[in-house]
Amino acid sequence: MAALWSGRFEKDMDELVKKFNASIGFDQRLYNEDIDGSIAHVTMLANQGIVTEDERDEIIRGLEQIREEIGASLNSSGDYVEVPGMNGISPLFSYNDEDIHMAIESRLTDLIGDTGKKLHTARSRNDQVQVDCRLYLQRKIAEIAASLARFEEVILNKAEEYVDVLMPGFTHIQHAQPITVGFYFMAYFQMFKRDIERLRDCYDRMDYSPLGSCALAGTTFPIDRHETAAMLGFSGPTENAMDAVSDRDYMIEFLNAASISMMHISRWAEEFTWWNSSEFSFIDLDDSFCTGSSIMPQKKNPDIAELLRGKCGRVYGDLMALLTVMKGTPLAFNKDFQEDKERLFDAADTWQASIEIFANMIEQAAFREDVLNAQLNRGFLNATDVAEHLAQKGIPFREAHEIVGRMVRVCEEKLREGAEKESSGDQFGLEELTEEDLSKIDSRLSKKMLGDISIRACVEARKSFGGTAPDEVRRQIETGRKWLAEFMA
Amino acid sequence: MAALWSGRFEKDMDELVKKFNASIGFDQRLYNEDIDGSIAHVTMLANQGIVTEDERDEIIRGLEQIREEIGASLNSSGDYVEVPGMNGISPLFSYNDEDIHMAIESRLTDLIGDTGKKLHTARSRNDQVQVDCRLYLQRKIAEIAASLARFEEVILNKAEEYVDVLMPGFTHIQHAQPITVGFYFMAYFQMFKRDIERLRDCYDRMDYSPLGSCALAGTTFPIDRHETAAMLGFSGPTENAMDAVSDRDYMIEFLNAASISMMHISRWAEEFTWWNSSEFSFIDLDDSFCTGSSIMPQKKNPDIAELLRGKCGRVYGDLMALLTVMKGTPLAFNKDFQEDKERLFDAADTWQASIEIFANMIEQAAFREDVLNAQLNRGFLNATDVAEHLAQKGIPFREAHEIVGRMVRVCEEKLREGAEKESSGDQFGLEELTEEDLSKIDSRLSKKMLGDISIRACVEARKSFGGTAPDEVRRQIETGRKWLAEFMA
Amino acid sequence: MAALWSGRFEKDMDELVKKFNASIGFDQRLYNEDIDGSIAHVTMLANQGIVTEDERDEIIRGLEQIREEIGASLNSSGDYVEVPGMNGISPLFSYNDEDIHMAIESRLTDLIGDTGKKLHTARSRNDQVQVDCRLYLQRKIAEIAASLARFEEVILNKAEEYVDVLMPGFTHIQHAQPITVGFYFMAYFQMFKRDIERLRDCYDRMDYSPLGSCALAGTTFPIDRHETAAMLGFSGPTENAMDAVSDRDYMIEFLNAASISMMHISRWAEEFTWWNSSEFSFIDLDDSFCTGSSIMPQKKNPDIAELLRGKCGRVYGDLMALLTVMKGTPLAFNKDFQEDKERLFDAADTWQASIEIFANMIEQAAFREDVLNAQLNRGFLNATDVAEHLAQKGIPFREAHEIVGRMVRVCEEKLREGAEKESSGDQFGLEELTEEDLSKIDSRLSKKMLGDISIRACVEARKSFGGTAPDEVRRQIETGRKWLAEFMA
Amino acid sequence: MAALWSGRFEKDMDELVKKFNASIGFDQRLYNEDIDGSIAHVTMLANQGIVTEDERDEIIRGLEQIREEIGASLNSSGDYVEVPGMNGISPLFSYNDEDIHMAIESRLTDLIGDTGKKLHTARSRNDQVQVDCRLYLQRKIAEIAASLARFEEVILNKAEEYVDVLMPGFTHIQHAQPITVGFYFMAYFQMFKRDIERLRDCYDRMDYSPLGSCALAGTTFPIDRHETAAMLGFSGPTENAMDAVSDRDYMIEFLNAASISMMHISRWAEEFTWWNSSEFSFIDLDDSFCTGSSIMPQKKNPDIAELLRGKCGRVYGDLMALLTVMKGTPLAFNKDFQEDKERLFDAADTWQASIEIFANMIEQAAFREDVLNAQLNRGFLNATDVAEHLAQKGIPFREAHEIVGRMVRVCEEKLREGAEKESSGDQFGLEELTEEDLSKIDSRLSKKMLGDISIRACVEARKSFGGTAPDEVRRQIETGRKWLAEFMA
Repeated sequence: MAALWSGRFEKDMDELVKKFNASIGFDQRLYNEDIDGSIAHVTMLANQGIVTEDERDEIIRGLEQIREEIGASLNSSGDYVEVPGMNGISPLFSYNDEDIHMAIESRLTDLIGDTGKKLHTARSRNDQVQVDCRLYLQRKIAEIAASLARFEEVILNKAEEYVDVLMPGFTHIQHAQPITVGFYFMAYFQMFKRDIERLRDCYDRMDYSPLGSCALAGTTFPIDRHETAAMLGFSGPTENAMDAVSDRDYMIEFLNAASISMMHISRWAEEFTWWNSSEFSFIDLDDSFCTGSSIMPQKKNPDIAELLRGKCGRVYGDLMALLTVMKGTPLAFNKDFQEDKERLFDAADTWQASIEIFANMIEQAAFREDVLNAQLNRGFLNATDVAEHLAQKGIPFREAHEIVGRMVRVCEEKLREGAEKESSGDQFGLEELTEEDLSKIDSRLSKKMLGDISIRACVEARKSFGGTAPDEVRRQIETGRKWLAEFMA
Repeated sequence: MAALWSGRFEKDMDELVKKFNASIGFDQRLYNEDIDGSIAHVTMLANQGIVTEDERDEIIRGLEQIREEIGASLNSSGDYVEVPGMNGISPLFSYNDEDIHMAIESRLTDLIGDTGKKLHTARSRNDQVQVDCRLYLQRKIAEIAASLARFEEVILNKAEEYVDVLMPGFTHIQHAQPITVGFYFMAYFQMFKRDIERLRDCYDRMDYSPLGSCALAGTTFPIDRHETAAMLGFSGPTENAMDAVSDRDYMIEFLNAASISMMHISRWAEEFTWWNSSEFSFIDLDDSFCTGSSIMPQKKNPDIAELLRGKCGRVYGDLMALLTVMKGTPLAFNKDFQEDKERLFDAADTWQASIEIFANMIEQAAFREDVLNAQLNRGFLNATDVAEHLAQKGIPFREAHEIVGRMVRVCEEKLREGAEKESSGDQFGLEELTEEDLSKIDSRLSKKMLGDISIRACVEARKSFGGTAPDEVRRQIETGRKWLAEFMA
Repeated sequence: MAALWSGRFEKDMDELVKKFNASIGFDQRLYNEDIDGSIAHVTMLANQGIVTEDERDEIIRGLEQIREEIGASLNSSGDYVEVPGMNGISPLFSYNDEDIHMAIESRLTDLIGDTGKKLHTARSRNDQVQVDCRLYLQRKIAEIAASLARFEEVILNKAEEYVDVLMPGFTHIQHAQPITVGFYFMAYFQMFKRDIERLRDCYDRMDYSPLGSCALAGTTFPIDRHETAAMLGFSGPTENAMDAVSDRDYMIEFLNAASISMMHISRWAEEFTWWNSSEFSFIDLDDSFCTGSSIMPQKKNPDIAELLRGKCGRVYGDLMALLTVMKGTPLAFNKDFQEDKERLFDAADTWQASIEIFANMIEQAAFREDVLNAQLNRGFLNATDVAEHLAQKGIPFREAHEIVGRMVRVCEEKLREGAEKESSGDQFGLEELTEEDLSKIDSRLSKKMLGDISIRACVEARKSFGGTAPDEVRRQIETGRKWLAEFMA
Repeated sequence: MAALWSGRFEKDMDELVKKFNASIGFDQRLYNEDIDGSIAHVTMLANQGIVTEDERDEIIRGLEQIREEIGASLNSSGDYVEVPGMNGISPLFSYNDEDIHMAIESRLTDLIGDTGKKLHTARSRNDQVQVDCRLYLQRKIAEIAASLARFEEVILNKAEEYVDVLMPGFTHIQHAQPITVGFYFMAYFQMFKRDIERLRDCYDRMDYSPLGSCALAGTTFPIDRHETAAMLGFSGPTENAMDAVSDRDYMIEFLNAASISMMHISRWAEEFTWWNSSEFSFIDLDDSFCTGSSIMPQKKNPDIAELLRGKCGRVYGDLMALLTVMKGTPLAFNKDFQEDKERLFDAADTWQASIEIFANMIEQAAFREDVLNAQLNRGFLNATDVAEHLAQKGIPFREAHEIVGRMVRVCEEKLREGAEKESSGDQFGLEELTEEDLSKIDSRLSKKMLGDISIRACVEARKSFGGTAPDEVRRQIETGRKWLAEFMA
């Protein structure tokens, strides 16, 4: 079938250019949204007397038949059942169709004849593709938010499971202060909570129907854009037609939300990859998320964690691609914008799969308490607590800080003197300093004055709001559960 | 003065490394926020009995004196009055101070002695810097939002001024349909409106106080984080200390909002740069925003518009920088994060200045109606309207579309036959086709059937919601004014 | 078939993870290179006595049969003939194969039995995939360089065709100085020449064989890496095995070369898109590279130029993706690196198609001399020349520059006084100033002193090396042709 | 002083815009290059008879005086000695000067009067700034290459120092195979070697003088561009004037080289940051490159390594910024391009400082052999070697691979049975399997058949070209030294 707009042209585009120019290879994914939009449109046209009710019914019948035809060409995982020579395009389509809008309209005319030609009244592909993309992205946002919510539930459960388990807390990848594993999980809970909220903002901001904006300036037909907006579930029509067809902000905002979230995943994946090393051995990853080596038979590689860390780059690239595409482009529509969809689909698919797989991986990961416990004795994790104890006894904090610095140095000297102990990874802790050691360091110091500076006591004392003490973490979990329940409601 | 944390070290860092490591060269900008945070902190410490009221008063007096000292070292445009050898650092500071937090605390101890050492009780630089950055960014967001709001007012006024003026509307930089200049302005109004709303979301999402999160795990002191949050104007404390000190999401979200907005500016700047060309001559830019050439005396270059288009790249770069910095970094704090501030400041300053300058440029720009009118006769701008007229008379839209395609071809042939006319830029319009021409093209066509297809009539008929008709644009302006008034309230 | 490395595992990966983890969906493109690498490898193994000659022959026979099988599963455009349910993977493969290396080895063992298991002696997938990628990219670089060379020939021909045709030269999108169209083409010639040279450097720098680096540390087998390098056309083996398996520099260097070249295309595409507007009308684009509108029947949109401009963003995104992936990854191999191939393939395909299509578009584009001539009278294009004339007569250049500025202002006043002329686009040129006008501006000025300041005379006088004079451009073309001939030799 | 091009304008730019527009705040760094370019230019002008020899001498005298004046305004570290109110601009300049070219020319006219106005004959700021930037960047490239060369020497020395020291080699951050520390260093040697070579290519490709290209089209003056090119040390003049003034490729190519190199640093910095953890403890970093914590007295944070990892993002951002700036900009010059310099300076300074500081850090870092030795017993590092031994005894490699997989499982079971051993980090190695164990696993196995599978024996056997065996690494070092000596010659 000749391209619908070929009336004016004297020459055909050659094959290479046609393929380069066509978007059917990727925008066929929007077929459902495209049909939904068309049905709303023709329903409104009939209500406004622009087409007859019979024409409307005929067109809707045709569209639903096309929906079924396309649906039947999909396999169980939602991909097109491919046939030789189609290179991933549904056998129902062809590169001559240029895009999914043309493809469906052309099939409609095949099916129902001239009445099909009335569907494109009072709209343009410029607004049509924007309706499709917004419907698609809103659905995708809902799915991703649901996946994130499930992930949050996993995290809450894990936090609960490990609410009393101690581990070293790190800054600069150095032992800093002892924390609970539950507390650690709740840090990630906050990150993914913001991701969900960012998605919701993005959803709300794009919740306006461009349908009826037409090419760029609206139409002379007496259409009712509020009606089609309502039928399609939007909160209203967009305010300005020219903006509506040239706006890709919502995609970029989504890509940025995806980038931040993938960055969160990359941070966690980074930690788990290193913690899975022989040296750390903090965690056990389930075999399902690891693979072996083709040459080194003993390896159990945390492939999925690494891959997830790398996927971050992919999504950053998608964001940068679309930002670049839009830079310096005049109003209203330009063909450059066609580059938006593949980047959008890629990021949405990558993000969704990443969350789902990562959630499963986290769910099945276990912390090794024996190893964590062994590490709690290293790096003077209670040093800050000692300084705080001293400060609470009246020594200005900066002075207390210096005193503890000297205590650490004495411990290190003691360890060095008894160097044979070092090889077994043991350490000489602050709590092992004798009364004599203490009084040499500062005359105000004594065992009694220091009080209970065991690691567990220190952790349990950090019960300031947002702190790591088990009870405070329980509060964080409870608040988290409430928020999640409200979000899901 | 020796670095405050030097107690443990045996060796000084050499000069080069010290400078590389120090952030004082740029984080001195946060001095006001840092002092605000400290005052809130010490006030709470006193309320909780952690320091005495006298100590509190002494510390606050010291901090206010430091604020004055620093303030006095600034010139009228808010920059440090620079002195030889300081390389842009306030003469009050030194690279030995490493960062603004250390610098102020060290000066405080100079001023008030040992009491000053009590200020850092129950906090860490890790939460302190986050308080500073959030306070800074919230202030900056408020300023930028105000600048955007003023810009929106400029746009609304311009839209009103040009509500009845016609111009060619473009897609693919081709004449597409006639529009009003007021309609064109309102497209940009929508974009910057979304920018403001995105800023508001960003502001709300970051409106939580990290103060009291300490290094990463909270504190054993009985602090009240709700109180400091309230004193500093936050809506509450952050939920999890570890997240609070490792979170830079709000900066990235801001950088993304800045990127989208700079992209909007780049689009408009692009149009104005081209429209300022001899060939277009659509607009007159005020001399204040143009410069001459060192070699070509006749040039009046739209330098500011071009520069604004280029600034987009700068802000994209800032976004990409911070996304990269955060990728794959473990919890909680890492020194890499120090790279955040320069990118943040750069983007915030660039965005703010760009909006303010661009708003002035737009305000003083004038559209040349004579040139626009001349162009309205070119490119068959009313072709879609003719097609819609035909469709309203019962010809299916797709057929109507093809008929108009044939009409265009006949016009072009006529023009070619009378080629001498072409050089003067004239064109043979659809409205000039004779009855004979029309009936040859399609037997159903006639002058009467076509009706009034003058450009102005076409524009006035596009009164669908969001359309270009003057009355509809007046509605858009009114709605815009209401929204703006509510935002400013 | 069970994954080859499954010996150690107790649990199967579930389907979702398997698909996420597998690269077979995209690395199947490397099948030819993979087989080439294996043949070289086994040939060397036999020469070194590690396998027998019979084993070698059997393996090579098997590999060639597999090459044929896969070849037969491709259609004429080199894509896999797709079958239901395979989602674009060759019917010969499965996601269980994980990657192309496993897939081929597993098929080999099916075909020839246990001997097939000897092929993977003294190598690892870590070095194998790098051999494949380098062979692939070197072939692709050769193809792209050839496409660029053909494009350069198009440009040279165009430059020759238009060597005497005048047009306004722009800076700041303002008329600056008159130039020849041939000169304009030769500016782009230089850009793409650098692109070709950058490709060559990239090729040379990656021209080393990683084969035999094995997992990361070489092997205990007595292999000969120089021999396999030579068989595969590399200039030698890589120096360090650990670097060889963790290096992706050559891909990033290629992506950067692609980005710069796509940026060049985006600049030209930008110009042609605007020059194709009604207002400029500088050029005629062939219908094959334009499309129509679904709603506006008169449009002839320069879609391909716009799309090419947008493709720039895609390639920038690919670059940013891989830069991000590699950031902060430890040695030697990490699964993150699997993200390299899709970005590489996407950029290489995009670049190659863009050049080929753009070259055709440029070849078939025509400049409209009538329009260019009309524009030569606008914008005082000869102003610099007048200033230079004055300077040659002894007036210091800065003074001459100011004098011409005054001349321009007088011309503009004259035009304003006779405003009716303006609407026709006419302009009052410097050459139209009377003796009286001139002497009022500066007592030293006279018609005679100014000499011939016609546009053509000005252009012909700019014959400094690299200048725009037709004779100088002829020299540039000749030099260009020589360089191209040498490159192609 | 009034802006030099103000002749034509009726209105002054207001202060804000002036500052926004001016580049003097950053391009003052180019003063030396600007003066060098001007001296070459005026020397050539005199040789061509365009100015007199007296004028030339006067101009050169003036320029050298300005060079001295500016030089005297710098402090010892090459920064401007700042004065109140100048905001980092040299006190000799003002924002009215707009850029360094104007500033110097205006000062020249102050100093020597009207003759100074002859300097700008036959050139434009468009070519002038490109000369400055190329001279600057070539100097910077030479400095950075020298820093890299020094770094390479450090690496070679380290490799030699550790040529016999064993450590676990990693893939997927899992123990993979034993390697030598010398081998590990030589992997990085290769990376920075490519960085140097990339710099050299970049240098060569930009080694052409744009001087005399003027605004965009060359000049009517009889200049000799070959002469100025030679005087300034370029290998010749650029071929096409329009390309010369619009080309920023060389900056992007440099930024890409910087990005790749910073990525290399980020990888190494990542490893050292983790290896510096309590859990790894592979290395000791010198105190000079670490800092303490304001709250945790025991910390010794690898700040510099972390900061270097983060600097990668900064340079990626610079690259992305300039790529974006150039996208879709028409020929020849546009004001957007002014954004190039700050990004270029930032990346060059960052890269240079990073290398120098990192080289020092690496030089002073020590590997802890005791810890490395303890880790060599973990993770079955010799598994691949065992498989290779078996393969050399005639068992097909894939089978051998599976057999070793079973051996690993038996060892792990043994360890689990004696679980108490695990807590001490001990492991049951492949070499500990008894004859009985072996024969149960596979009837062909025996102690004798396995041979010497100690870690050191395995490493020494990996002597394939590029392998990890000490002797082979010695060869790599020697080859590296030769290359470096040739590069430095």
